[in-house]
Amino acid sequence: MRNFADRLAESVRNKGTALCVGLDPRYVLLPKEVTGAAESAAAAMLAFNKEVIDIAAGEVPAVKVQVAFYERYGWEGMKVFGETLRYARQRGLMSVADVKRGDIGSTAEAYAEAYLRPDSPFSADAITVNPYLGEEGLRPFVETAAEAGRGVFVLVRTSNPSSDYVQDSGGEPVYLRVAELVRELGEGKEGECGYSAVGAVVGATQGREMKVLRERLPNAFFLVPGYGAQGGTAKDIPAAFDKEGLGAIVNSSRGIIHSYEGPAAGDWRGSIRRAIERSKEELRSCVRGTRASG
Amino acid sequence: MRNFADRLAESVRNKGTALCVGLDPRYVLLPKEVTGAAESAAAAMLAFNKEVIDIAAGEVPAVKVQVAFYERYGWEGMKVFGETLRYARQRGLMSVADVKRGDIGSTAEAYAEAYLRPDSPFSADAITVNPYLGEEGLRPFVETAAEAGRGVFVLVRTSNPSSDYVQDSGGEPVYLRVAELVRELGEGKEGECGYSAVGAVVGATQGREMKVLRERLPNAFFLVPGYGAQGGTAKDIPAAFDKEGLGAIVNSSRGIIHSYEGPAAGDWRGSIRRAIERSKEELRSCVRGTRASG
Repeated sequence: MRNFADRLAESVRNKGTALCVGLDPRYVLLPKEVTGAAESAAAAMLAFNKEVIDIAAGEVPAVKVQVAFYERYGWEGMKVFGETLRYARQRGLMSVADVKRGDIGSTAEAYAEAYLRPDSPFSADAITVNPYLGEEGLRPFVETAAEAGRGVFVLVRTSNPSSDYVQDSGGEPVYLRVAELVRELGEGKEGECGYSAVGAVVGATQGREMKVLRERLPNAFFLVPGYGAQGGTAKDIPAAFDKEGLGAIVNSSRGIIHSYEGPAAGDWRGSIRRAIERSKEELRSCVRGTRASG
Repeated sequence: MRNFADRLAESVRNKGTALCVGLDPRYVLLPKEVTGAAESAAAAMLAFNKEVIDIAAGEVPAVKVQVAFYERYGWEGMKVFGETLRYARQRGLMSVADVKRGDIGSTAEAYAEAYLRPDSPFSADAITVNPYLGEEGLRPFVETAAEAGRGVFVLVRTSNPSSDYVQDSGGEPVYLRVAELVRELGEGKEGECGYSAVGAVVGATQGREMKVLRERLPNAFFLVPGYGAQGGTAKDIPAAFDKEGLGAIVNSSRGIIHSYEGPAAGDWRGSIRRAIERSKEELRSCVRGTRASG
């Protein structure tokens, strides 16, 4: 399979946007129309996800699926998680499984087998991984991803208020050390587009740091979460992009999929469609170069 | 439900050992007797786990179940993961779900619901959590655990060779900052035994640091992985314990559950039983105070 970064770059170019739709459905927020017709919470989530994917398919390059919201419904939830990833692929969307896994050696290998192969049970185009265990914990993910044309996004700098305590703890900030690790692990894994299969998660509320990390990681695709409902705004984001509008995808979850006014909302599909359009427009106004080519 | 640390302390006292058996089964290593009779990889893992749990039930206080080895078999694997946790409980063993989850706010809450309630789909007595996202990422786990009489073990210092890069990066080491966070989060969550529901994962190969962390975290139960197959030896471990033999549980996985000689081994049950006995004896020789009281 082609290099992950090349596939992602092509998809961003074709759709003319770096917007990524986050599929983190909360059962209590789902439209009554959907929950009323479903046999279980897990079945309602799948029905809802398929509708959102149908709406998003022509509009955005990728979806990000946060596994925690599926895991809480046990194996039935995990089954729906896998089916959601498969349906996104069928509809031509790339997928990021937001699992933030991280462990050593053989355990990390087992996780990589779960997500990064074409025949993995939860096969995704990329996953998010946690760097706390160091290089040894990341390498099995990176190697498997490179073999299979998949990608990883390493948590480098997250956007939550208390992240400084661990990630920026005086002396040389830990997130810059992790960035150096991402750079090393990504060497030799660049596609023709210049970006690597080893990317970085960089929160949208860290404007100044975004610029520093862009300079230190010129070849890493960034996954920027925390846009929309989490308080990040589009103005922090330009520094993540190159002059052709590549180099990052920007995720919005709740601000899109739960944009309608409560479970009783009538035209929830229209509300989701408009929220996608609005988010694309907002991104377009701040990021140079992202014009639809397809 | 009673405080997690009190339940764990009682269980360690009753069994007279702090040994924890790690259920991380590798399909290719399972006895042929088991795989030959099973319909699927997941079914073989469950059958094997039940046998190991039957052997371990009278011998040790707890099992640690590493989710990666189940996740790689998809939702069928996750179903077996949940059934393994349930069977351990039925047989009177405490369980640590080694999931190393970590995420912010509402996502961490969703993970906590997956693992830390009596009616959670993967209900365990404790889970391991990753601190990279800071206090905000830990608090939902800690609050839910305290409410439900469950525990969390925060990754503080892991035992793999490359862990220094992130965890001990010059200036004030990150693992000491994380330890301080564990201390703060654990305050007011101590049981009658003096230990808290908020514990710490501290690798067995970090002998000197074990002592420092014990001093800084007098009220945290330690989960010590990396004993046996991963190269940690019992001599690193005494510093984790108080003079009554409490304060830590010590996990061994492969060194016990795959101690028999290959899938064709005849008396694999006997080999597992003897490996448990041997590990208990080794721990007993280095840890004061752990004598069976039950």
